[in-house]
Amino acid sequence: MKLRSDNLRKTYGFDEISLSPSSIKTVDPNLCNVSSTLASYKLKTPLMASAMDGVVSPKSAIELGKQGVLAVLNLHGLWTKYEDAESRLKEIAEAKDNEFVSLMQKLYTAPIKENLIGQRISEIKQGNVPVAVSSIPQDALKFESLIYLAGADFLFVQSTVTSLEHIGSGESLDIAKLCNKSKMPIIIGNCVTYNVALELMKTGVSAILVGIGPGAACTSRGVLGIGVPMATTIMDCVDARDQYFHETGKRIAIIADGGIINSGDVCKSIACGADFAMLGSLFAKAQGAPGSGYHWGMATPSPVLPRGTRVKVGTIGTYEQLIHGPAALDNGFHNIIGALKTSMGTLGAKDILEMQKTEVIIAQSILTEGKVYQSAQKLGMGSRS
Amino acid sequence: MKLRSDNLRKTYGFDEISLSPSSIKTVDPNLCNVSSTLASYKLKTPLMASAMDGVVSPKSAIELGKQGVLAVLNLHGLWTKYEDAESRLKEIAEAKDNEFVSLMQKLYTAPIKENLIGQRISEIKQGNVPVAVSSIPQDALKFESLIYLAGADFLFVQSTVTSLEHIGSGESLDIAKLCNKSKMPIIIGNCVTYNVALELMKTGVSAILVGIGPGAACTSRGVLGIGVPMATTIMDCVDARDQYFHETGKRIAIIADGGIINSGDVCKSIACGADFAMLGSLFAKAQGAPGSGYHWGMATPSPVLPRGTRVKVGTIGTYEQLIHGPAALDNGFHNIIGALKTSMGTLGAKDILEMQKTEVIIAQSILTEGKVYQSAQKLGMGSRS
Amino acid sequence: MKLRSDNLRKTYGFDEISLSPSSIKTVDPNLCNVSSTLASYKLKTPLMASAMDGVVSPKSAIELGKQGVLAVLNLHGLWTKYEDAESRLKEIAEAKDNEFVSLMQKLYTAPIKENLIGQRISEIKQGNVPVAVSSIPQDALKFESLIYLAGADFLFVQSTVTSLEHIGSGESLDIAKLCNKSKMPIIIGNCVTYNVALELMKTGVSAILVGIGPGAACTSRGVLGIGVPMATTIMDCVDARDQYFHETGKRIAIIADGGIINSGDVCKSIACGADFAMLGSLFAKAQGAPGSGYHWGMATPSPVLPRGTRVKVGTIGTYEQLIHGPAALDNGFHNIIGALKTSMGTLGAKDILEMQKTEVIIAQSILTEGKVYQSAQKLGMGSRS
Amino acid sequence: MKLRSDNLRKTYGFDEISLSPSSIKTVDPNLCNVSSTLASYKLKTPLMASAMDGVVSPKSAIELGKQGVLAVLNLHGLWTKYEDAESRLKEIAEAKDNEFVSLMQKLYTAPIKENLIGQRISEIKQGNVPVAVSSIPQDALKFESLIYLAGADFLFVQSTVTSLEHIGSGESLDIAKLCNKSKMPIIIGNCVTYNVALELMKTGVSAILVGIGPGAACTSRGVLGIGVPMATTIMDCVDARDQYFHETGKRIAIIADGGIINSGDVCKSIACGADFAMLGSLFAKAQGAPGSGYHWGMATPSPVLPRGTRVKVGTIGTYEQLIHGPAALDNGFHNIIGALKTSMGTLGAKDILEMQKTEVIIAQSILTEGKVYQSAQKLGMGSRS
Repeated sequence: MKLRSDNLRKTYGFDEISLSPSSIKTVDPNLCNVSSTLASYKLKTPLMASAMDGVVSPKSAIELGKQGVLAVLNLHGLWTKYEDAESRLKEIAEAKDNEFVSLMQKLYTAPIKENLIGQRISEIKQGNVPVAVSSIPQDALKFESLIYLAGADFLFVQSTVTSLEHIGSGESLDIAKLCNKSKMPIIIGNCVTYNVALELMKTGVSAILVGIGPGAACTSRGVLGIGVPMATTIMDCVDARDQYFHETGKRIAIIADGGIINSGDVCKSIACGADFAMLGSLFAKAQGAPGSGYHWGMATPSPVLPRGTRVKVGTIGTYEQLIHGPAALDNGFHNIIGALKTSMGTLGAKDILEMQKTEVIIAQSILTEGKVYQSAQKLGMGSRS
Repeated sequence: MKLRSDNLRKTYGFDEISLSPSSIKTVDPNLCNVSSTLASYKLKTPLMASAMDGVVSPKSAIELGKQGVLAVLNLHGLWTKYEDAESRLKEIAEAKDNEFVSLMQKLYTAPIKENLIGQRISEIKQGNVPVAVSSIPQDALKFESLIYLAGADFLFVQSTVTSLEHIGSGESLDIAKLCNKSKMPIIIGNCVTYNVALELMKTGVSAILVGIGPGAACTSRGVLGIGVPMATTIMDCVDARDQYFHETGKRIAIIADGGIINSGDVCKSIACGADFAMLGSLFAKAQGAPGSGYHWGMATPSPVLPRGTRVKVGTIGTYEQLIHGPAALDNGFHNIIGALKTSMGTLGAKDILEMQKTEVIIAQSILTEGKVYQSAQKLGMGSRS
Repeated sequence: MKLRSDNLRKTYGFDEISLSPSSIKTVDPNLCNVSSTLASYKLKTPLMASAMDGVVSPKSAIELGKQGVLAVLNLHGLWTKYEDAESRLKEIAEAKDNEFVSLMQKLYTAPIKENLIGQRISEIKQGNVPVAVSSIPQDALKFESLIYLAGADFLFVQSTVTSLEHIGSGESLDIAKLCNKSKMPIIIGNCVTYNVALELMKTGVSAILVGIGPGAACTSRGVLGIGVPMATTIMDCVDARDQYFHETGKRIAIIADGGIINSGDVCKSIACGADFAMLGSLFAKAQGAPGSGYHWGMATPSPVLPRGTRVKVGTIGTYEQLIHGPAALDNGFHNIIGALKTSMGTLGAKDILEMQKTEVIIAQSILTEGKVYQSAQKLGMGSRS
Repeated sequence: MKLRSDNLRKTYGFDEISLSPSSIKTVDPNLCNVSSTLASYKLKTPLMASAMDGVVSPKSAIELGKQGVLAVLNLHGLWTKYEDAESRLKEIAEAKDNEFVSLMQKLYTAPIKENLIGQRISEIKQGNVPVAVSSIPQDALKFESLIYLAGADFLFVQSTVTSLEHIGSGESLDIAKLCNKSKMPIIIGNCVTYNVALELMKTGVSAILVGIGPGAACTSRGVLGIGVPMATTIMDCVDARDQYFHETGKRIAIIADGGIINSGDVCKSIACGADFAMLGSLFAKAQGAPGSGYHWGMATPSPVLPRGTRVKVGTIGTYEQLIHGPAALDNGFHNIIGALKTSMGTLGAKDILEMQKTEVIIAQSILTEGKVYQSAQKLGMGSRS
């Protein structure tokens, strides 16, 4: 008798895998090339910063861009709702615990001022860095021209779970139409499975965000029961990318998005096959990060079902320290790129393409300080505002 | 050489599984239909409240019913033993730790007053909600007419482990005879395996309660060594339901009963194939719950082998908040139905039947606040009366 | 390429398994027969008490025997080294932490007074209970007549690991010769594997003790790297018993010895196929236990490599409460036999032979209070003398 | 569809395995022969001490050597950079937390004084013990003659990950050339896989150090994502050794290096097939250890990516106590050789070759005090300087 319970698939998260140096070759880290390709753009590093208000503002997007990180500005957050978004961010950082949820609900129900979309893009553009913005699917077609004309280089279209077919009020986004119409590369997400990734690739997108439910500032798994461990989900979507490339010769970038806590997770993401790793909470810890030491997950908190929480993450160093070092911490929070290069050199990978072929093994998790700290916070045992 | 130890079956609990959004479709949560079918009744939600004195009283049954939850009143608890059950509940809530066990033994050894059975049913009936009551197998045939005539809609017949054959003193319940005789749908439980579920279905019952040993206020596993993780046991009994439907065309409802702590577990129960999820401790936390912030597991504590414990669960919100929100907590204790609809929409399931076909994966557990809190309580590290 | 690491066997401990009620039958616990057979003796319960000085004295052997438990007196402990063993036990209980190791080394290096062997056996005999004593292999042949003539019913021959061949100084025990010579049933142990169990059975022993390294007051695994999880080891030796029975028609009893913390573990031991479960630390917690609330593991502590530790276990009830209840605790420390009968009834097993055929499943461990308490103690977080 | 995530290899660490006494033979521990062979040398024990400044100084090398342990002096540490290395060690032990990283960076960037290489070797030589020193690959050929002429018996060539081909600035070490040229046995490492081990053996080395990333004073896994659990990596390299022996008749020694915390881990290393077990943190705990109760992992801390941390390990006994007992602790920190002999005797292994054939099983980890203590330290919960 074939029982369903005996045929469940085992999946793996970052903490359950490790990288094995199985090559007879090593490379001087200084020679390791960490550039990665998004559409026709060669970006300096495989790092991205999440479209969250505590992580990316126009000013921090410039600073991150100068360090080689593609920062994505959320077009449905405070920066397009308020002229003086800075003051709103300050309000959030200074709110008391019991005021937070209602404050968020108040601030985020304000409408978007369309003129601010162009203005924010221009602000980043003036920093001479690639400009990436994020829209929700419902508004993507409407704002596309405005975004393009303002000078954006990449348009991210993000929802918790991307679908090709949405049953419900309003029209659902025709992704193929958007890709066809837009002169910008379209990046879409999030998704987690081989089949969905493959279907999305056929619409003409340039990259796919993978990851649902493993993030630190997201309680999808507890509240909704939904979540797919990152290592498996990256590998599955990478398998789809390789299959699509095999069939069409087109290479769609895979962006690992969610649950990436430190440099070790960045290394693992790439070794699982991802082209980019998107970080949220770690960049929220930078000096000058828009959240001022706080991080909150959901761009648009539901008025009836809050899933994002404001977490006090603190400030641990400059953007330069976090991204290029030198490191003063040994927990993988500092010098992400230095760690990635050292990992690549140790594993004998001279570039991202070789790093994607590293041997990944299943290994019992060893908790690092950073991870425990975060868990403790999440469980209300650490400091939390 | 074939050794028994090499052929043990691996089973899975809620914390070991997760739901994977593997559909290319999403649904607007507002359009998700959460009604579920019990016998010929279409109930508004797939939620039930356990037949425990700290969870369901006539008054709370009405309040729960108005929120779409089928509350089951225990006919062998305080409400049929005492005219003034409220005072007894107050005694339990106010007892000191060292008085609790003896107080319970005293209160629960009192005999049932048959007139109170009808009276309690009438009290609920006046609330214009479906009326469900629970009897132990030994008394089911005796009280069936009385229960039916008083206006009950559903008769639950519950014991820790349901058997078709009971070796021992007294006559064991002839379930087929009861089903045949009664005009009410008969719901029986609990059981945990494919074979037992299939045998029980053949007796004519309308639904089966599945789950033994995983519950929070039950120490079956430590004391008796018995317990089957919920995800596997639901899936196995659902496999039996589908087989029975395949053979006979009759669909018997599966009710997941035990270890369901928060909305994530409700979502997982349905995704494992259950038609209903029965909650105890979560409803004991409602404002106005009969236990006044306390929860105790066993309806009839054994005088020689106590397995249920009184746990201080506290009060976290109104029935409406718990069931329909809006949520002020992000741990899955508030807005269960909102969470279920959001989960269904995210997974592309427009109704309970589609939700039952969701992909379930094995994923390392991530403890949520609620679960840790409860574990801590259980281990005597949290507050406990 | 076949790598050794890919072919390791997965083994299971009590905390990793659970019992599944997969029968359609239940039995009234009062009708469950818990008697078990050792050689030609039908013992009232399947419980034994370990040959440890903190657990079994002549006086406690009588009390345990009256409750149906076969207590084994260690013939190489304090009772055969000192006329006034009581005072020595008191010294141990009252020693300070830093005095303990040297006190033990002093007390246990004293020689055995042969006259005390007969005397202790007579003392137990006067209680009208079965008399069981334990010798180390080296002395078994020498003392056998003395032990038999004094009236002992069972002779246990125990060492950490039983071998058929011992390379070293002195002569190793010829087990077959001992079995042949003795009119008492010989029980030997400990062992953990199918092959060794099978070889031991061929020597003519009546029972085998199984279990190495899982015990609470034993640090074999940390210090020596040795230890086999109990569920697997019981099942493997039971497979050997059944094979030996199949070949010869003789049924050798399997005694689970080690790591049995509470009634749940007793139930699991029997369900794994054991005929008896031997308890140490739990009986050390009885009122009147020789250790006065303390428990120490090794009968003869090595002067160079101490592995046993004195643990403060406290006193939690009378022998009657622990064995037959009524239970005041819900953690499986009280009413072991009541719990076993309830477990058997729930699983539909009317006697030990049927209980041995219960379905055992692999299930994520749920820590019970008792187990956590003990772990905490072991880790120096609880009270410890 | 074959997905990469479904084909990951499961690997095992020391805490996930255990040794099973599956022999019918036992051996008197006093008769167990623990000598092990390195090149043509028969060493008294299979223990080595890591080439770390907190572990091995010329003085401690002599003391360790007298106890049968081969201590390896790091030729790129303080002893070859400073005449008065003692004072530098004292500085490190007395530095405040916030001074540590910069102090280390300052002290270790000083150049090597070549004259000190010979001097340190002579100092150890005067103790009449085997002399082993460690060089980084870049300097191995340059210093080889100097090292040999000064009287060293073994030359270890160590880097985090050994490669046969290094892409980068400078010339990479031609290991075959070094082996060919040197009259000393060359020991090289570290590596972790079958293939790399096999390739390294072909270069003419006498032994291979196996282990990357599992060590306590190393954060490779968190920062770089790299690390292979020890049990698997030892077994894989041992498989390579046996294959190489099968092909060539030459036996290359396997040295387990990393994550060996206590005597239990030493026993497991040998049972996994290793010829030697190299210990760092445990010997740092000896009275008179160069670190004065502190341990730090990396010989040459990177100025941009610090991965080693200074951990307060305390002082727990003399070298004799740690290595040959008598033990006053029962956590595997004292009397490593006594424990190894007892383990061997229990498992029926009369020498290291027989111990290497022990049955290894997968068993749920039981944390010992020492391990928890260390984890706690690592997580910043214990004392830490």
